[in-house]
Amino acid sequence: MKKQPISKYPVPELADLPEDIREMMLAVQEKAGFIPNVFVTLAHRPEEFRAFFAYHDALMLRESKLSKAEREMIVVATSGASHCTYCVIAHGAILRIYAKNPQIADQVALHHSNADISDRQKAMLDFAVKLSRTPEAVSDKDHQHLRSHGFDDEDIWDIGAITAFFALSNRMAHLINMRPNDEFYLMGRVPPPSKQA
Amino acid sequence: MKKQPISKYPVPELADLPEDIREMMLAVQEKAGFIPNVFVTLAHRPEEFRAFFAYHDALMLRESKLSKAEREMIVVATSGASHCTYCVIAHGAILRIYAKNPQIADQVALHHSNADISDRQKAMLDFAVKLSRTPEAVSDKDHQHLRSHGFDDEDIWDIGAITAFFALSNRMAHLINMRPNDEFYLMGRVPPPSKQA
Amino acid sequence: MKKQPISKYPVPELADLPEDIREMMLAVQEKAGFIPNVFVTLAHRPEEFRAFFAYHDALMLRESKLSKAEREMIVVATSGASHCTYCVIAHGAILRIYAKNPQIADQVALHHSNADISDRQKAMLDFAVKLSRTPEAVSDKDHQHLRSHGFDDEDIWDIGAITAFFALSNRMAHLINMRPNDEFYLMGRVPPPSKQA
Amino acid sequence: MKKQPISKYPVPELADLPEDIREMMLAVQEKAGFIPNVFVTLAHRPEEFRAFFAYHDALMLRESKLSKAEREMIVVATSGASHCTYCVIAHGAILRIYAKNPQIADQVALHHSNADISDRQKAMLDFAVKLSRTPEAVSDKDHQHLRSHGFDDEDIWDIGAITAFFALSNRMAHLINMRPNDEFYLMGRVPPPSKQA
Amino acid sequence: MKKQPISKYPVPELADLPEDIREMMLAVQEKAGFIPNVFVTLAHRPEEFRAFFAYHDALMLRESKLSKAEREMIVVATSGASHCTYCVIAHGAILRIYAKNPQIADQVALHHSNADISDRQKAMLDFAVKLSRTPEAVSDKDHQHLRSHGFDDEDIWDIGAITAFFALSNRMAHLINMRPNDEFYLMGRVPPPSKQA
Amino acid sequence: MKKQPISKYPVPELADLPEDIREMMLAVQEKAGFIPNVFVTLAHRPEEFRAFFAYHDALMLRESKLSKAEREMIVVATSGASHCTYCVIAHGAILRIYAKNPQIADQVALHHSNADISDRQKAMLDFAVKLSRTPEAVSDKDHQHLRSHGFDDEDIWDIGAITAFFALSNRMAHLINMRPNDEFYLMGRVPPPSKQA
Repeated sequence: MKKQPISKYPVPELADLPEDIREMMLAVQEKAGFIPNVFVTLAHRPEEFRAFFAYHDALMLRESKLSKAEREMIVVATSGASHCTYCVIAHGAILRIYAKNPQIADQVALHHSNADISDRQKAMLDFAVKLSRTPEAVSDKDHQHLRSHGFDDEDIWDIGAITAFFALSNRMAHLINMRPNDEFYLMGRVPPPSKQA
Repeated sequence: MKKQPISKYPVPELADLPEDIREMMLAVQEKAGFIPNVFVTLAHRPEEFRAFFAYHDALMLRESKLSKAEREMIVVATSGASHCTYCVIAHGAILRIYAKNPQIADQVALHHSNADISDRQKAMLDFAVKLSRTPEAVSDKDHQHLRSHGFDDEDIWDIGAITAFFALSNRMAHLINMRPNDEFYLMGRVPPPSKQA
Repeated sequence: MKKQPISKYPVPELADLPEDIREMMLAVQEKAGFIPNVFVTLAHRPEEFRAFFAYHDALMLRESKLSKAEREMIVVATSGASHCTYCVIAHGAILRIYAKNPQIADQVALHHSNADISDRQKAMLDFAVKLSRTPEAVSDKDHQHLRSHGFDDEDIWDIGAITAFFALSNRMAHLINMRPNDEFYLMGRVPPPSKQA
Repeated sequence: MKKQPISKYPVPELADLPEDIREMMLAVQEKAGFIPNVFVTLAHRPEEFRAFFAYHDALMLRESKLSKAEREMIVVATSGASHCTYCVIAHGAILRIYAKNPQIADQVALHHSNADISDRQKAMLDFAVKLSRTPEAVSDKDHQHLRSHGFDDEDIWDIGAITAFFALSNRMAHLINMRPNDEFYLMGRVPPPSKQA
Repeated sequence: MKKQPISKYPVPELADLPEDIREMMLAVQEKAGFIPNVFVTLAHRPEEFRAFFAYHDALMLRESKLSKAEREMIVVATSGASHCTYCVIAHGAILRIYAKNPQIADQVALHHSNADISDRQKAMLDFAVKLSRTPEAVSDKDHQHLRSHGFDDEDIWDIGAITAFFALSNRMAHLINMRPNDEFYLMGRVPPPSKQA
Repeated sequence: MKKQPISKYPVPELADLPEDIREMMLAVQEKAGFIPNVFVTLAHRPEEFRAFFAYHDALMLRESKLSKAEREMIVVATSGASHCTYCVIAHGAILRIYAKNPQIADQVALHHSNADISDRQKAMLDFAVKLSRTPEAVSDKDHQHLRSHGFDDEDIWDIGAITAFFALSNRMAHLINMRPNDEFYLMGRVPPPSKQA
């Protein structure tokens, strides 16, 4: 079966991109060894691209009491609930690496209630999935339940805002049929190639 | 019954905000006569605030074959489907003004299929609501159906990206229980006060 | 965009109606200043018309510990859940007037959990919406929960019976695509015209 | 297991009822051999009782191109979809008698798509169940589909209005936990006792 | 209306069946007076047939603290939730006989929460229907709730395994449109013919 | 985080198992290099175990026009729809091996509509997921649609029966919280260890 394209939309050449976006991509490539398709495909609209990654970084790189692995768990669980192949495959890879656990992404994407994570993390993901799929159902009781697990108001904003951002991201991925890079499938499942030498 | 607060989170004083955000708010106040609560409440997190409004403006202010009223219809229909009081009341007001139609926002929020809008606009809103509520259900057939109504690929990106952005926005509003300003309820239903003089 | 007709079905002339129905309409017109379309459109079937309004009046005009505003809240919340434009717009107007609150109808129709109403009223609307949308899910526990908020058995019958009647009403409105009168949109949002003189 | 009561609410004595209601019940008893519990239990509220049965008779006894069996099919299919024990058991009995078919009620209540009925009747029940469970989903296309099966506008009103009335009826039955009379379970499954003599 | 066939697939002649299957059928016929269509229709695939009935008997005939009537209640409740005509009609008959109660099957199929059964049995059926319709929603809390009603771990396996087996069975019945034998409709509603002599 | 146990139920020792079951397990171990947990955990009930694997083999090992990879796709797609971690992880591994494609299982589990598979295979999985999650919604039209993709009646039985069997299997896995063996996570993603030598 022929592989599907990485987007329903035209994908710009690096050379044709605005300077700031091209440099951002080259920096990512330098660090990761490849350019994730979310960069390549969203660059179709440079202004939206800039806002998208500014928002992403504001949430995912900020100081937070949520660990980086926990933030990626939120992405993977909510994207799994919305059947978003790109987000689960790409962020699943990142989750495996942050958590140093080759099984956790598959478990969280499929059924976080039975994953090898803490009860506190399950409560966090219950909230995230509820906000993601039925935002109108979230109530004060849900906030209180998170507080009973030790999350404070800023933690809850983090959980909710990451969920909200990836609700956007999932819909963009579905809209353009964004395809994950081949590299993500194996990342974090086996030692990285550079260490095998 | 006492009115609920405008956010579950602390609302910063204008004086305490970063310069760029304060100026942005004052400019809005100058133009609209009041500062919509989405500015005031999201300013709790300045970096996310900047990305949020950069994204919003990239979508809602750009050149597009969708009219401004059509873009607001997308916001109102998808926010109605997610029971988001802030987004429906605030963007309903804007929609009434752009469309010069005092009934359209209530109609679109409640049941766009029977609203006084064109079949083309109904097809646009069917797509938006589907992408908003069940993004995994959107398929090539939905894109083709939009094309049969005269939307081209860039129009479809606009429809989808606005839907995606307000999926984020709806979830932030539910997260913090964002309350609409009193001013929005009547805007666009009666001639503006300044014209009554 | 051309306005849609008030019904998919023929609308009888006042002169062609049975005497009792014509007099009822004229009495309503005398009092309200216009004839709500629910009268005009349902008059297509006089016998059903008579039973419909007899039922309506038996519930909405009877002595009850529920206030008139509370009864209209039930109509607006359940009709919002069923996306019934006629019922939300028309009864939203009545609710605004009874409650002397220009915001309450929009809040209750969109998301009653966050409306500016009491916890007791929220419990009442939770029950009503559950009975309206998933009647099979109502159980003894729901009755007990209402009693814990001070509702007695007759109050619960009132809540349930109003919900049941408007389940009928919503379906008739969807069946014939009943259109609300223009007058309802603004009623209760601004002082009535007669008082502006 | 002890049998549950016929209503959560007090059931009035025949002697305590208003004259017109008592006579109506005695007439039913005369004809059917027993008084169906819907009469006994709804008599708790005489005024609503009168409107309920006036509405019922206006729909179920009127001249119509829908046969009496077809009207009962609508009741049984929509009440099955709402898990209403009283309505399915009681009207299932009436359906068996009108259709002279001891299997039809069970088939229609469980899965009308596979019942031994005509394609035209299946289209009628598809429409009725859609209007009953998701009234907001009914559109012009559904009306057109019924017309393609030979139903005219007045037939469609009949189908829709019966559906609407039993949406009310189902909710009242769930509200008070109305229990079907023992007699209904076997009616129409075997020759009536009087004919066995 | 012509009766529909008992299967979408060819039904083998007794004479053409493998010896063991034919003997099994004749034994059933000897005992029940007729061959239930589940035997006749599934015999289209002899190897699957043998596994199906081995599984069925392992669950339904084993020593268990669940009574035979309780096991059939599980079948009827879960099959009702999946609108499986064959399973509800056939196992409803068996349930009536085991429970010596002509009303119980209709009650359990339609709305087990209001059936004339014990609270313990209602808890059992709540669990079964949840596992049947939304298996991913079952959690430790559900197991604990069953234990609070006196079910031990082996009882819970029985409840769950019967539910799981009939999830398979319901889907096979829907796949081939399996039709119940006429005999089932009346079984257990009236004294068996042989005793009337 | 401590790994969860492989079952909520006691897991029998090999030595304590009936002879036939022990030999079956040893044969699997010989072939696969480990004993999948579905064998170990279901052996808690030997008689059900035998029927389970007889049924499994009757479907998965029989001559069929569906390829082995296609049969595993059905398992993975339907188990993904039911959030069944064991079935997706274990059968995902088998699917990768049969299809010689390291990405296919993740794609099919998450969103088969966008997987790198043929339109015919997508139609097959649409049918399987519909039968799995809402068996009552399957109709003649679905059979006809499969036939339009070249599936004959026996192919459709295969698709449906595999779906039905794994509906059972998913529910057993959820019931006992069956945990996949660690080995499955990486199988088919990288060349097998024995070939690396």
